[in-house]
Amino acid sequence: MTHSRVIKSNGYHWDGVEKKDYKTDTTNFKDISRYSLLGEGERDYELNMQTRYFEIQPGGYSSLEYHRHPHSVVIIRGSGSVIINDAIHTISTFDVVYISPETVHQFHADNSEELGFICVVDRYRDKPAIPGTEIIDRLVGQGIAREKIRL
Amino acid sequence: MTHSRVIKSNGYHWDGVEKKDYKTDTTNFKDISRYSLLGEGERDYELNMQTRYFEIQPGGYSSLEYHRHPHSVVIIRGSGSVIINDAIHTISTFDVVYISPETVHQFHADNSEELGFICVVDRYRDKPAIPGTEIIDRLVGQGIAREKIRL
Repeated sequence: MTHSRVIKSNGYHWDGVEKKDYKTDTTNFKDISRYSLLGEGERDYELNMQTRYFEIQPGGYSSLEYHRHPHSVVIIRGSGSVIINDAIHTISTFDVVYISPETVHQFHADNSEELGFICVVDRYRDKPAIPGTEIIDRLVGQGIAREKIRL
Repeated sequence: MTHSRVIKSNGYHWDGVEKKDYKTDTTNFKDISRYSLLGEGERDYELNMQTRYFEIQPGGYSSLEYHRHPHSVVIIRGSGSVIINDAIHTISTFDVVYISPETVHQFHADNSEELGFICVVDRYRDKPAIPGTEIIDRLVGQGIAREKIRL
């Protein structure tokens, strides 16, 4: 008995994988969907990590957040940008993004196309926090990233 | 001080990431390269997982192996097939593959093009083992997968 499997893709959709709400407890995001690919169900108890696909529609963005657990990200569709603390980085397909612990970050589909990425995280992890003004002042500062963040 | 970063890609190469030997201790593979993207260096001590990109040239294959740690795989280039125990699955770009513990597996670029995939594993994991005849008899059996495996 093995839980090994191949999940066939059809473009940026996967057989048997439903589009889910990005988050249910906050509203500081826009036009973003989540697909849970591996590691969330009981069947995948052997996995210490979860593999998710996120897709942001043009003009949308993920929530501005910070947390203890890191993110390992690979862009697989389109382009956009990511704010990491006080920096804005442009990102495009197959770029790799590492979000280290306790950094404020937000992904933006700001290049007139979808931005889609694989994001792998620890299965057991802390809950993201929405930064308040004190954290934003300290980590994002007053420069170009401050102008771009959406709350 | 953050170790967050964006690693820019140029096709299926990444700035500052060198092509490495696939393995150095065995020879049961053909025309495959490894790129370590995240989680191997001391700088990435915060990561519990490693993100690697593997690329197999047409006609090549990964080593036939099994181990306790699972693999979370996303195909990002081309197509081919993967043997998982006694089954052969065709795979193509954006398919997701889960290799559960203690399953014999081997990736083949057998569709006249490169097969490239992101493979995420636990940072601390057991060493892959090459299955002997007893394991192959039990897990791969005598069917179509047996014909296809390369040792």
